[in-house]
Amino acid sequence: MTEITMDQAQTMMKVALEKGREMGLKPLSVVVLDAGGHVKAFLREDGAAPGRFPIAHGKAYGAVMLGMAGTAQMARAEQQAYFMAAVNGVYGGQVVPVPGGVLVRDADGAVIGAVGLTGDTSDNDAIAAKAGIEAAGLTAEI
Amino acid sequence: MTEITMDQAQTMMKVALEKGREMGLKPLSVVVLDAGGHVKAFLREDGAAPGRFPIAHGKAYGAVMLGMAGTAQMARAEQQAYFMAAVNGVYGGQVVPVPGGVLVRDADGAVIGAVGLTGDTSDNDAIAAKAGIEAAGLTAEI
Amino acid sequence: MTEITMDQAQTMMKVALEKGREMGLKPLSVVVLDAGGHVKAFLREDGAAPGRFPIAHGKAYGAVMLGMAGTAQMARAEQQAYFMAAVNGVYGGQVVPVPGGVLVRDADGAVIGAVGLTGDTSDNDAIAAKAGIEAAGLTAEI
Amino acid sequence: MTEITMDQAQTMMKVALEKGREMGLKPLSVVVLDAGGHVKAFLREDGAAPGRFPIAHGKAYGAVMLGMAGTAQMARAEQQAYFMAAVNGVYGGQVVPVPGGVLVRDADGAVIGAVGLTGDTSDNDAIAAKAGIEAAGLTAEI
Repeated sequence: MTEITMDQAQTMMKVALEKGREMGLKPLSVVVLDAGGHVKAFLREDGAAPGRFPIAHGKAYGAVMLGMAGTAQMARAEQQAYFMAAVNGVYGGQVVPVPGGVLVRDADGAVIGAVGLTGDTSDNDAIAAKAGIEAAGLTAEI
Repeated sequence: MTEITMDQAQTMMKVALEKGREMGLKPLSVVVLDAGGHVKAFLREDGAAPGRFPIAHGKAYGAVMLGMAGTAQMARAEQQAYFMAAVNGVYGGQVVPVPGGVLVRDADGAVIGAVGLTGDTSDNDAIAAKAGIEAAGLTAEI
Repeated sequence: MTEITMDQAQTMMKVALEKGREMGLKPLSVVVLDAGGHVKAFLREDGAAPGRFPIAHGKAYGAVMLGMAGTAQMARAEQQAYFMAAVNGVYGGQVVPVPGGVLVRDADGAVIGAVGLTGDTSDNDAIAAKAGIEAAGLTAEI
Repeated sequence: MTEITMDQAQTMMKVALEKGREMGLKPLSVVVLDAGGHVKAFLREDGAAPGRFPIAHGKAYGAVMLGMAGTAQMARAEQQAYFMAAVNGVYGGQVVPVPGGVLVRDADGAVIGAVGLTGDTSDNDAIAAKAGIEAAGLTAEI
């Protein structure tokens, strides 16, 4: 399995934040998690609320742990709220099941991590995250 | 960024409680948090229930951490309950997403803390908190 | 049983902080808990570190919950560290067993709350807390 | 009070990691926290163990919350182990009291955040963190 390098993580964050500025989004925060759901890199833009790390992390953490991107998690939460609540119980309350938690796949389609992005609407967050992942030469699943 | 001083915090609490008495509200409790969500000051009026600190704190804490006042948090909780539940998970269950969590902004519009007020209806709580914040020369976002 | 009123709590905090300034202590934080160990009032002086509420609270909380002042708790921790660690386990990790957690007793000798004070050395913290309690017409047990 | 900007945080991390490579240290991880102890930025070098974020965070978090750098925390832990254990209890077990948690002070001497660095010996970690902080034009307290 390929691993996300620190250089790739920095490219993802840089391009995701540039995308946010280009789209005129509110101040963003972006985390990159590895294939085990562990933090590889994080940046919080000036002006973002102090509590943005746990939200960015929660979006990406659920994606890696379940192998399911934010959009699919949200659909599940809307159909079956108690199931996602229970999932959150077993994962220590660390999952935020909305778009902006974006899976990172390598050329073979394996999940090698996730990007969590927060600050604007969930849909805009996901667009910016996707731009970052693709700039690093990897595949994004929103 | 300006910081809320201890003197300002005491003015906020004094005036908020006076406002409550003037409006004939039930016994109130009021907390002031700084820009990092840390407790700066707290008072619980005689006759208030013993568990009021965590509720006052929860209203103000969510406001600071998310950069979103209680009214907006409640709207989000009503639209997307599982999202606010998940946010609460990542913040250790410390968020009470209703009015009475009032953001404190400085002259430049930066969030420099929040007041959490509890004891009467959420809407009355917010009115009293706002009176306190304005008496300290700062801007309240309900 | 007498209850600590909000006015008495404010007197305790005001005089304890004045005592600290008179003694030339570092910036202080002071909490007043009621007979059930619940927060009645708190103040953090400008310049104190952000994490002072939990420490002030922990000093006072152990005092109320065990009915044992900070000095006695510290003696027990030094004799039998595992016992105080276990006590902390059952109290949710909320106890800080050092001087500066000062019991408040009424005229009949009943424990009606505690003051927790932090910021300088533990011994100086206890002296300032005691001054505050006595100014409110109550008895302090260091 | 000054705030650590995202650009300064990136400078701190870049220079700290370069210092580590220059000194021949093992793969490092570095976090920057703001004045409220909230995560501003993080990087984990390739080859570092997956669990390095919580350790880097724990070094910096205790420093901000207590206003006490890692070296002083370690001294206190060695003198009075039960006190630092209790402090950790009230901070949710998030404190790692060793060198490598380095306070960041502005020109007025105010604590505006901390850098947490982990991967090599605690003393080497602190040297690399200090280099990063100074490169951003701020003052480091080891």
